[in-house]
Amino acid sequence: MTKQQIGVVGMAVMGKNLALNIESRGYSVALYNRTGSKTEEVVAEHPDKQLKGTYTVEEFVQSIEKPRRIVMMVQAGKGTDATIQSLLPHLDKGDILIDGGNTFFQDTIRRSEALADSGINFIGAGVSGGEEGALKGPSIMPGGQKEAYDLVAPILEEIAAKAEDGESCVTYIGPNGAGHYVKMVHNGIEYGDMQLIAESYDLMKNLLGLSVDEMADIFKEWNTGELDSFLIEITADILTRKDDLGTGQPIVDVILDAAGNKGTGKWTSQSALDLGVPLPLITESVFARYISAYKEERVQASKVLAKPEMTFDGDKKELIEKIREALYFSKIMSYAQGFAQLRKASKEYEWDLPFGEIAKIWRAGCIIRAQFLQKITDAYETNPDIENLLLDDYFKDITTKYHQAVREVVALAVQAGVPVPTFSSAIAYFDSYRSERLPANLIQAQRDYFGAHTYERTDREGIFHYSWYTEE
Amino acid sequence: MTKQQIGVVGMAVMGKNLALNIESRGYSVALYNRTGSKTEEVVAEHPDKQLKGTYTVEEFVQSIEKPRRIVMMVQAGKGTDATIQSLLPHLDKGDILIDGGNTFFQDTIRRSEALADSGINFIGAGVSGGEEGALKGPSIMPGGQKEAYDLVAPILEEIAAKAEDGESCVTYIGPNGAGHYVKMVHNGIEYGDMQLIAESYDLMKNLLGLSVDEMADIFKEWNTGELDSFLIEITADILTRKDDLGTGQPIVDVILDAAGNKGTGKWTSQSALDLGVPLPLITESVFARYISAYKEERVQASKVLAKPEMTFDGDKKELIEKIREALYFSKIMSYAQGFAQLRKASKEYEWDLPFGEIAKIWRAGCIIRAQFLQKITDAYETNPDIENLLLDDYFKDITTKYHQAVREVVALAVQAGVPVPTFSSAIAYFDSYRSERLPANLIQAQRDYFGAHTYERTDREGIFHYSWYTEE
Repeated sequence: MTKQQIGVVGMAVMGKNLALNIESRGYSVALYNRTGSKTEEVVAEHPDKQLKGTYTVEEFVQSIEKPRRIVMMVQAGKGTDATIQSLLPHLDKGDILIDGGNTFFQDTIRRSEALADSGINFIGAGVSGGEEGALKGPSIMPGGQKEAYDLVAPILEEIAAKAEDGESCVTYIGPNGAGHYVKMVHNGIEYGDMQLIAESYDLMKNLLGLSVDEMADIFKEWNTGELDSFLIEITADILTRKDDLGTGQPIVDVILDAAGNKGTGKWTSQSALDLGVPLPLITESVFARYISAYKEERVQASKVLAKPEMTFDGDKKELIEKIREALYFSKIMSYAQGFAQLRKASKEYEWDLPFGEIAKIWRAGCIIRAQFLQKITDAYETNPDIENLLLDDYFKDITTKYHQAVREVVALAVQAGVPVPTFSSAIAYFDSYRSERLPANLIQAQRDYFGAHTYERTDREGIFHYSWYTEE
Repeated sequence: MTKQQIGVVGMAVMGKNLALNIESRGYSVALYNRTGSKTEEVVAEHPDKQLKGTYTVEEFVQSIEKPRRIVMMVQAGKGTDATIQSLLPHLDKGDILIDGGNTFFQDTIRRSEALADSGINFIGAGVSGGEEGALKGPSIMPGGQKEAYDLVAPILEEIAAKAEDGESCVTYIGPNGAGHYVKMVHNGIEYGDMQLIAESYDLMKNLLGLSVDEMADIFKEWNTGELDSFLIEITADILTRKDDLGTGQPIVDVILDAAGNKGTGKWTSQSALDLGVPLPLITESVFARYISAYKEERVQASKVLAKPEMTFDGDKKELIEKIREALYFSKIMSYAQGFAQLRKASKEYEWDLPFGEIAKIWRAGCIIRAQFLQKITDAYETNPDIENLLLDDYFKDITTKYHQAVREVVALAVQAGVPVPTFSSAIAYFDSYRSERLPANLIQAQRDYFGAHTYERTDREGIFHYSWYTEE
């Protein structure tokens, strides 16, 4: 009996679509799902494809050629551990397990170590692009043993999205948890991008009083320039859609303003906090989702708390252009912070992350895909050791051109009472980062005063303590 | 031989000062330190006091009357675990171990459970006030078995700071990790308070061009009103101090602007992220410390990134008053967020935290001691179930009076290029919290578009998904 070239565990939509994607490139695929009826369904839906349904773990594993390549698309966490435990007794040394879930990178480090003891290779692969991406070509961020990666690279390169220049959106990220870490930061950046778009929409809607149609046109236009990206594109599309339950309203107006989350944005912020890297923009976007979820309290608060009295009577078109500039400027702050986090993580975990390549494989397939990522790749090609993207010439020029716009937009929003947590966090980061001197000297003085925490000086080396209490 | 009434392990400055504080209330105290010479020193320095130096763990434990009350003031983490392990074989059922360190609350929960198996009571007590507080009266936040607390309460009440009305700054916080959790949030709030003061100082220095003497006078004056607090008081004092190395400069001007941290602010933010509670202000203040530590990068960036051209030519006195109002307004946002976090944690961990009492015991002894805490106590007395302090009448009135000031200060700072991450985060929180409708509906539409994450509607119950892709 011929063996299948690869196996996929987990027949929920992501696993199913990834299996179909792989099969469409000419590979035979063994399928397995804990509940067999799901597997049956997938096979029945696609009778003409090289999909082999299997109904026990043993049958699944035995049906795959060695060294086995097995992709797990199961629920991150306990689902992943349970799947590994059920597969393990049937695997042979040299087999390769690929976890394509949204797994916490520390779990991937742990599993990678545990499996290495059994001689099993483990690849933690971030997969971005949602259902559509899984089927037609996602961006893939694989981390694990380089030798194992090389054995799966041909398949991954075929199934991944292709950028405009034809390059495949997959590259070797680094050892153990590196791929899932990079996917996590990708998701954090996605939170930031979405919140920035939401604030732009809020300003156009509530400060400028634009209709959804007008806003749809604006986002459409923005999508032809520097902001060209998947999220801007779908925003324009969303704003054109009518309610599917027949109220006649735009769908966006009947959707409840309480944002959910799956935790990856939170992880990104928590990791930045652990690493000592400033990540205010993404973190504000996580908190913005949290505060949106307090819907009932907000309704109550809206009835009692004071509102500013302010209407905008300036030039609408000019302000719309300033909002666009503020959005691009703030997006740059967010990516500068995210890549600074990757840089610190790369050192901390000894991953030697390929920053320019990472930006490259985000150019297609994933949720944050955008023209602008090429600029990040270029920046790392010019200087692979650049400490922060803001120091690169292209980004320096953009911030020089656009910083006044974000200042005006934030000043206006704050005075009009439109909440802009990420826009204002963006300019605060910029102004902090470009400050030779920050007021942290006062904080150090306070810490030394009440806790004898000591301080350094500007004019000489060493650690100092001041006798604040005269009785000392 | 008479036994000592209480024992203190750890003779670093906090342990020593706490032991002296306890002894000064008429208790005999057994002392122990891993390195005996430290213990000898303390005893030798205070020959007339009821301090008994002991030099083995066994001697230490045997010298204390039963049920033993032992306070550990050792390095949080491994130091605490090592101390518990060395004490444990010598303890008897019913003995009470008190951990007075800056311990992560999850560690306290774990240790509490482990020790309960051996019949040992464990109290995780947050102690705030620094060296000075430990000696003269700290604010104490004890969590653990209520019965055990009752056995140590008389001592704790005597050694704790006293508020103006004579009440002792200690109260039973709740089971297991509750005390250390509350201390953690206290420290997070401390980070926020310090950053808000730093931004006020930065504005007065760099936007208004005030001298340290002028600023010292302003903080002194502020300390007589709504802002009356320890941190404002020491800020005024710091600004009057001259360099102790004889450069003739104000000390604050020679201290390096790179702030350190001990991790408790970070923990507070990470816990808020886990609990789904928005805590932007404290988190921005943690990130502000992080960014300050990137001193070399900032110096480099200051030479290449664009600065706004803007000088202030309005009324200085008016702006100083607006900064004061912005500071008080923002402080209220920070405490509202911190207490909302305590509320969520109280539910999550089933602690039944006494919010009003917590504000009360922060009125003296601790770093964030302030007049204004009485207003929080009052708010919880009026309505113990209040969801957010912003809904209380006093705070509602203040925000109504002061919100325009913070808007003006933020608008000005952003246009002048003075970084105000916490001031701007404060107004963003206020404007988000009082928004009946936030733009999170757009975020939900995007999530449903690319990830089929579904959404709720404003006009009917249920979970919905839109067919964004026409081929569906």
